[in-house]
Amino acid sequence: MTMKLKTPVIIVNFKAYSEATGKHAVELAKKAEKASKETGVNIVVAPQFIDLCCIAQTVDIPVFAQHIDPIQSGPFTGQVLVDSVKEAGVCGTLVNHSERQLKLADIDAIVKLTRQKNLISCVCTSNPAISAAVAYLHPDIISIEPPELIGTGIAVSKAQPEAVTNTIKLVRKVNDHAVILCGAGISHGEDVSVALKLGTQGVLVASGIVKAKDPYTVLREFADSTKPT
Amino acid sequence: MTMKLKTPVIIVNFKAYSEATGKHAVELAKKAEKASKETGVNIVVAPQFIDLCCIAQTVDIPVFAQHIDPIQSGPFTGQVLVDSVKEAGVCGTLVNHSERQLKLADIDAIVKLTRQKNLISCVCTSNPAISAAVAYLHPDIISIEPPELIGTGIAVSKAQPEAVTNTIKLVRKVNDHAVILCGAGISHGEDVSVALKLGTQGVLVASGIVKAKDPYTVLREFADSTKPT
Amino acid sequence: MTMKLKTPVIIVNFKAYSEATGKHAVELAKKAEKASKETGVNIVVAPQFIDLCCIAQTVDIPVFAQHIDPIQSGPFTGQVLVDSVKEAGVCGTLVNHSERQLKLADIDAIVKLTRQKNLISCVCTSNPAISAAVAYLHPDIISIEPPELIGTGIAVSKAQPEAVTNTIKLVRKVNDHAVILCGAGISHGEDVSVALKLGTQGVLVASGIVKAKDPYTVLREFADSTKPT
Amino acid sequence: MTMKLKTPVIIVNFKAYSEATGKHAVELAKKAEKASKETGVNIVVAPQFIDLCCIAQTVDIPVFAQHIDPIQSGPFTGQVLVDSVKEAGVCGTLVNHSERQLKLADIDAIVKLTRQKNLISCVCTSNPAISAAVAYLHPDIISIEPPELIGTGIAVSKAQPEAVTNTIKLVRKVNDHAVILCGAGISHGEDVSVALKLGTQGVLVASGIVKAKDPYTVLREFADSTKPT
Repeated sequence: MTMKLKTPVIIVNFKAYSEATGKHAVELAKKAEKASKETGVNIVVAPQFIDLCCIAQTVDIPVFAQHIDPIQSGPFTGQVLVDSVKEAGVCGTLVNHSERQLKLADIDAIVKLTRQKNLISCVCTSNPAISAAVAYLHPDIISIEPPELIGTGIAVSKAQPEAVTNTIKLVRKVNDHAVILCGAGISHGEDVSVALKLGTQGVLVASGIVKAKDPYTVLREFADSTKPT
Repeated sequence: MTMKLKTPVIIVNFKAYSEATGKHAVELAKKAEKASKETGVNIVVAPQFIDLCCIAQTVDIPVFAQHIDPIQSGPFTGQVLVDSVKEAGVCGTLVNHSERQLKLADIDAIVKLTRQKNLISCVCTSNPAISAAVAYLHPDIISIEPPELIGTGIAVSKAQPEAVTNTIKLVRKVNDHAVILCGAGISHGEDVSVALKLGTQGVLVASGIVKAKDPYTVLREFADSTKPT
Repeated sequence: MTMKLKTPVIIVNFKAYSEATGKHAVELAKKAEKASKETGVNIVVAPQFIDLCCIAQTVDIPVFAQHIDPIQSGPFTGQVLVDSVKEAGVCGTLVNHSERQLKLADIDAIVKLTRQKNLISCVCTSNPAISAAVAYLHPDIISIEPPELIGTGIAVSKAQPEAVTNTIKLVRKVNDHAVILCGAGISHGEDVSVALKLGTQGVLVASGIVKAKDPYTVLREFADSTKPT
Repeated sequence: MTMKLKTPVIIVNFKAYSEATGKHAVELAKKAEKASKETGVNIVVAPQFIDLCCIAQTVDIPVFAQHIDPIQSGPFTGQVLVDSVKEAGVCGTLVNHSERQLKLADIDAIVKLTRQKNLISCVCTSNPAISAAVAYLHPDIISIEPPELIGTGIAVSKAQPEAVTNTIKLVRKVNDHAVILCGAGISHGEDVSVALKLGTQGVLVASGIVKAKDPYTVLREFADSTKPT
């Protein structure tokens, strides 16, 4: 059984931005928690490995890793063990982000590991065919992110709506239960509401929040935009 | 200026062993701290990324990362930012461990990053020629570890003493100040004392401690064995 | 439109074996051609890059590359350009062999490149779920090869028949036209006939032929075993 | 004993440019041969893997591979075996080009393999410290190429002369016999003559020749520019 993920959901990838490192990471996670509590919308934070433990102990919203390695306990150096993530109170992980792409067999192995450990897997994909391929590995979440839009401020939901709708169409042939998100360039509340209207159950965001002058206000705007008008 | 590292030194790589993950990692770090305080010998612990922050806050001995990535703040996912490590109270990092080998240009970039941030770099090498090559990149520590002996319990200091002495000879032609360690198969106090007699300033160990029935006793034995008889 | 591949088919991966390098590679390709002509069974050879050109000019059976890179003409060094393969008279390529595993997005890109250039793509997979995932990328051939059996002489068709039949079942839900092969440990004619009885359209073999004392005789045995009794 | 390489030398990396693929590659190699014979200057060509065999049989100038893998005969797929290169009549290889960077231990292993097989190794580096590191691995040729200048038409010999002279200074402390080249942005005869005046024994070029309207004329200009005025 996979963990239940409340939708709509906004996942905030902190990446390796200094604005989201160490104590700034904790502050940002607290803002996400505040926006989530005020709006009732599920906001997940995905900080760097080193900040995971502290943030998971500090906030009461779901915390994801940005990556885990396809390994079990053993002689591996500089890798991320699933048990380590689990014990830190983390409840899921991004997998195959376009900035951390993986071999197909490793995606399969990581999704299986998360399932064994009752963690949520969010596999990132770059086009509808890849989304459909991934659907067969039965991750909990599939997030379509055209790499050419990442960090541009040009929202996938507006610039490539067909990438999103084709992902949904192809994935649903295979897989009824996977949560489908989209990401890349999401920077306005409207980008979020359009994403939901296209049929997704949320968004994966990064610089739109992390590099915003006032991340809390943008988080509120995003969360409010998930609600039907 | 590079940080000063007290020698002789014993670096304990926790790897991704479940015996050295989460709360077990904290316990093991405390045992290392106890052995260090009792003997006055410098013992460094290198836990997994996720345990770094908690351990650096808990113990009063040096804490190293097992790896960092050659990146600055930016859009990178699932990577280890040097600032993140620094802010967690970590004071150094392993680089190019045989289980996490790096491109030559990345070793150079990581050593430079650690120097900028006043962190200690410990570059692992697999033979004397590679040790000499690395010496030109001016890391703080060079640790020779023949990969075929790692995890075997057959100590490099006894099985391949010439790998150690040739490393010392070649490195010293280039580089006066780098601390030179050896590792692989170190499992008895005598392996440590032989390593020092060969001319090293300490050892890099992993399973010999982490998988020991009584890690504290072995740590004490190793620390005591660094002392002249 | 993808190229038509005559089935049943036996693909012989020459790997980097010295027994199948240079002039030995040409001799082995000629033996494959002889066995193919005598039996009427389609035998494909997949030599090393450097031998491709010469073999494609020498024999009159299909020649595959062992890998191509997901690139177009440009500033790339030490990579394999699809045009180069095409111009050499090669008619297809292995993709994602377990000894040359690829990122998911690169598998997708390579399959698309082969389609554009009218080359046959044979994507290797390691379990039924991965086979189904790959089916969505619409390669011409999917070959299931449990990595733990490769080179063992223990045939997948006998040791893991359910890996083969589950691959066929899952792939066929998605994809009617892909040719399905199996590989790993195939060393006797009976391994081939069992593979076909399980529903595959052929086999992918390597050491069973390349390291055989008399490759021609084994090739004949394999080819004969594809025929109904 | 390493092979003797006549200097000054011009190495032309064909990369994966369509202008230097298949029959175009053969034509370009013939132009290089013509320019070499007319001027008496050693010109080496480094075509793609698939064109190596045909070009080595066609021209009477040295042919290099762009890369080889650190492997011996065995079960490896899609890799480049040193014996395969050797048997094709190739006499050397680029190693660690900035577009095909390698782990430090693999550079060491490849240099050793080339020495065993009496092939010439040309290891590419990106700065003087890395050049000095590589010098300890005793390749036959070290070529310094600042990656930020590759393909720009801004010649390393004019834009970063100190990268070249510092490479020479540091390498010569370690290694008397390695041939030292520079590359990146070389597009005019003057770039070549300046490179030699800085103390190099030749240049590594690619787009300056491959993408030139008239490669033969540029090759002649480069070759003539290696001569003292």
